[in-house]
Amino acid sequence: SSQRTEEDRVEFLTGIIDAISLGTTIALLIRNKDARSVDYDHIKDAYRPSHADFAWDAKFGIRDFRGGGRASARETASRVVGGAVAQQLLSQQNISVQAWVSAVGNLEMPYPSEVKEDAIYANEVRCPNPQSAIKMIELIKLVRSEGDSIGGVITCVIKGPPAGLGEPVFDKLHACLGKAMLSINAVKGFEIGSGFNAASMRGSQHNDPFILNENKITTSTNNSGGIQGGISNGQDIVFRVAFKPVATIMKEQESVNAAGEKVSVKGKGRHDPCVVPRAVPIVEAMAALTLADHFLRNRLSRI
Amino acid sequence: SSQRTEEDRVEFLTGIIDAISLGTTIALLIRNKDARSVDYDHIKDAYRPSHADFAWDAKFGIRDFRGGGRASARETASRVVGGAVAQQLLSQQNISVQAWVSAVGNLEMPYPSEVKEDAIYANEVRCPNPQSAIKMIELIKLVRSEGDSIGGVITCVIKGPPAGLGEPVFDKLHACLGKAMLSINAVKGFEIGSGFNAASMRGSQHNDPFILNENKITTSTNNSGGIQGGISNGQDIVFRVAFKPVATIMKEQESVNAAGEKVSVKGKGRHDPCVVPRAVPIVEAMAALTLADHFLRNRLSRI
Amino acid sequence: SSQRTEEDRVEFLTGIIDAISLGTTIALLIRNKDARSVDYDHIKDAYRPSHADFAWDAKFGIRDFRGGGRASARETASRVVGGAVAQQLLSQQNISVQAWVSAVGNLEMPYPSEVKEDAIYANEVRCPNPQSAIKMIELIKLVRSEGDSIGGVITCVIKGPPAGLGEPVFDKLHACLGKAMLSINAVKGFEIGSGFNAASMRGSQHNDPFILNENKITTSTNNSGGIQGGISNGQDIVFRVAFKPVATIMKEQESVNAAGEKVSVKGKGRHDPCVVPRAVPIVEAMAALTLADHFLRNRLSRI
Amino acid sequence: SSQRTEEDRVEFLTGIIDAISLGTTIALLIRNKDARSVDYDHIKDAYRPSHADFAWDAKFGIRDFRGGGRASARETASRVVGGAVAQQLLSQQNISVQAWVSAVGNLEMPYPSEVKEDAIYANEVRCPNPQSAIKMIELIKLVRSEGDSIGGVITCVIKGPPAGLGEPVFDKLHACLGKAMLSINAVKGFEIGSGFNAASMRGSQHNDPFILNENKITTSTNNSGGIQGGISNGQDIVFRVAFKPVATIMKEQESVNAAGEKVSVKGKGRHDPCVVPRAVPIVEAMAALTLADHFLRNRLSRI
Repeated sequence: SSQRTEEDRVEFLTGIIDAISLGTTIALLIRNKDARSVDYDHIKDAYRPSHADFAWDAKFGIRDFRGGGRASARETASRVVGGAVAQQLLSQQNISVQAWVSAVGNLEMPYPSEVKEDAIYANEVRCPNPQSAIKMIELIKLVRSEGDSIGGVITCVIKGPPAGLGEPVFDKLHACLGKAMLSINAVKGFEIGSGFNAASMRGSQHNDPFILNENKITTSTNNSGGIQGGISNGQDIVFRVAFKPVATIMKEQESVNAAGEKVSVKGKGRHDPCVVPRAVPIVEAMAALTLADHFLRNRLSRI
Repeated sequence: SSQRTEEDRVEFLTGIIDAISLGTTIALLIRNKDARSVDYDHIKDAYRPSHADFAWDAKFGIRDFRGGGRASARETASRVVGGAVAQQLLSQQNISVQAWVSAVGNLEMPYPSEVKEDAIYANEVRCPNPQSAIKMIELIKLVRSEGDSIGGVITCVIKGPPAGLGEPVFDKLHACLGKAMLSINAVKGFEIGSGFNAASMRGSQHNDPFILNENKITTSTNNSGGIQGGISNGQDIVFRVAFKPVATIMKEQESVNAAGEKVSVKGKGRHDPCVVPRAVPIVEAMAALTLADHFLRNRLSRI
Repeated sequence: SSQRTEEDRVEFLTGIIDAISLGTTIALLIRNKDARSVDYDHIKDAYRPSHADFAWDAKFGIRDFRGGGRASARETASRVVGGAVAQQLLSQQNISVQAWVSAVGNLEMPYPSEVKEDAIYANEVRCPNPQSAIKMIELIKLVRSEGDSIGGVITCVIKGPPAGLGEPVFDKLHACLGKAMLSINAVKGFEIGSGFNAASMRGSQHNDPFILNENKITTSTNNSGGIQGGISNGQDIVFRVAFKPVATIMKEQESVNAAGEKVSVKGKGRHDPCVVPRAVPIVEAMAALTLADHFLRNRLSRI
Repeated sequence: SSQRTEEDRVEFLTGIIDAISLGTTIALLIRNKDARSVDYDHIKDAYRPSHADFAWDAKFGIRDFRGGGRASARETASRVVGGAVAQQLLSQQNISVQAWVSAVGNLEMPYPSEVKEDAIYANEVRCPNPQSAIKMIELIKLVRSEGDSIGGVITCVIKGPPAGLGEPVFDKLHACLGKAMLSINAVKGFEIGSGFNAASMRGSQHNDPFILNENKITTSTNNSGGIQGGISNGQDIVFRVAFKPVATIMKEQESVNAAGEKVSVKGKGRHDPCVVPRAVPIVEAMAALTLADHFLRNRLSRI
């Protein structure tokens, strides 16, 4: 859904021979062939509203303004490659990760009973509900025509996790997932299972009863989102991630520059009005990396 | 607000002499004088719904069922002590941390223009709005009479942070705050600044314009919650934390035990229907520890 | 061999129930019952030669001069307890750790064909060679009578390690062992296998030929000390650790104090002329902790 | 001194713009243009004596035999680049790092009163003593003509360190230096200051008296090697590193292969009989990286 044609050619530098990993560090390189620095010249001296420009200058006193530097979402491309490696490890354990766009603006898709991979990739907005998808696409078109941007929500489900992943105190599984998601550009919120709705629920309503299902202990509801006390309980792990509207808009905005002068800023070139659909593989990648990490750590829990 | 009389006497073991820190590790010990193990005997063999019992057994194959072991919120007492040390460091930098209960169940306090420390501690529910506080206390009483429990929301503001705290990619400041909050027992959600509301906003509405205020660069709104691109911009850092209703209730609940048999579980002894007010100092402590950590790390950003 | 009667009573605070570890952090406490602070009053203001006093003041600007604070070898008591836990894990894998005093001053014990645990603990100098032990004890007596101190060497062998422990680049097994040993008070040198002797050897002499022994691949010599390219090869891991003479002596020494004035310093109270025998369990403990750590890490090398 | 023409062209990928570092991660790439895989075909199936081949197979079950893979000393090229960055930081603090070859085989250079950079680089063996250098070069020639290899020792001095670097217990400065040196290929031993000689010294002889020199506290001897209690005391930091003879020799050696069959192995192609001179910049780089790390950490010791 991006107008930029950033060809993401991955070159694996070390750690893999004949398509097999060697057990050592895997290094990879993705060159940004399509960075048009000229598009950024107009903001060289101005602090773009709600971008990292000002905070970055305050921290380092120097900044590579071209393409946003390290603050650019381009950085997440390498996470997607890393996530693909993690997903290979997880698929050996029959663990899968699936994310989709569940809201754009105030258009929210009803929670689905089941989501098929095909349905997610059947449209450019990455929403598996066809009716919702059509409305979301319309809304994004409208927002683009206005030169504005809009936020949204991604829902992610991890299917087939074993019980026992996560650490008791500081590396609770959902805390690690939360940190991973909040490390993605434009994310403003994270909730696991019942999330913010839990605040208005009663315990008798929220508690997930343990039941027996074909001699396996399971729960009849999943308000816990698959994690209890920071440790997975074997149910699906379910979480939601809120994205703000992307900061670059095609409208004139007032701002200041590094010299402390009032300036006017307006986006130029190629920019997406809604980055949420493009963030679906990033959410999946960060979820896979976090799960794979905890899967490996969990092997240390019993000798 | 707890019926348990857990006298939290802190003994500092190392790292402090004559009330001055030595620069080396500070170790402290809080003995749990009031642990009545007998209160837990009835659940020795049963998996309490939405507790960590089952997940813990799946992970370690062994569990100290008395008082919840490491999964007990008692563990957070040491975080509060650590947070007190961090707050001393922050107060030297004129940074302060303030948290309060902003919702219990569906009773939500309107967002305040200013919050005074006195107002928070004027009532047992830790809500600075007197009208809201009265209703919340009523609701908690009702929930207790029903043998049930209820969730809530804590809002936290960090005042006076310098611009420049946080790391560009994996240790974004709000990602670290999110992980810290999600590591607190019963937390199900975290949002920074506009949070989940951001999903339904337009960029033109959400962007925080940079303005000059007495020759200092500031922003006229704070949807960013004080953090942009993972780095503090000098505005107040504002976030919200959602707590589920505590899992222990005084009602009969169906469950299973480790042997895979159906059992009935009911809470006994001393239990709180709403832990949210007691979590206020824990949220403050974890926020102070995270900020102090980043304050120290930031000193490495420029030689 | 210490004249101080430091009763090392260990109190386990968490992580163990009924003598079984719970999988969570084990915390323990050893109180120093016999710290006679008065013994240290005379050096409160003086920098004792070759002690940490001056460096410590330069770093922190504050120091707990009583008993050496964190710089005291008393700190290693907790390492010995930790090592005992690690040794339980290793013994399940048929890995054992054995250290002994191989030199005191210039009295060097000939390298033994075999060392029995009994022989090490048959004398107070922890040297398994009875003839060498007698001479070492004599030497230490002489040094004590002179109010002086003396150094020595500890040799350590890890028997039964599997091949494959250690990481290829930065956490090479012998690098981790070296760091662990150099973290022990008074250690000045570390060598693995042939060590410094390797510098004067030819490759044809130093290389360990691979041979078959009952269909198992082994080596006919062990100049490598059981580690090749940072990774264990299944042979005994052999290393040596050099200890300087303890800095506290009963002789008058010139020094300066914090005010920059010339002062005279002389040890008082109870001090050991040779700490090397007391360091044997510390070397064993640090070796066990390092091996156990790598044993666990190695479980992550293959899924 | 290598016969291999490995052109080490460094490409900086990120973190630097117009020769100025941005404060973010610096990534660099050195392609190995001259890897002649054919040279290694003969050892594809054999375990070369005292190489990492066998241990590596035992660990990972897969190995890139071409050029030694991650176990090759080629890997240290990136450390030298990293060290160059660290040295820029250190030179701003007037800290310099200087290493030289102090022994080849049993030819040991007398300890110098002063070493000039020019003298080290005046000959190919990197020994600042011209008489010793001539003998060393002769010895290496002889060893090469025999198809053999030989070890040596590198001495390193860090000049101008401030007092206060290093951590009290587990990250003692010399423990970190030791680990860094032991992570370099072919290193078998490390000693700080008096090193293994300390074992045979008396305390009265080994202790470094504190004296006043132009109102500055200094020591009249430096057996401590500039570090006391794990923390630098402001004197020169002096250490020695022992290298074994390189394992690849041009002589026929007996070995076994992965199938457990007896094989004969003989080095082919371009190999160095003595790698010690080539290791001088690697020792300097690892020392600079370790010091720079501790210099930054030490800034956290006082607020």
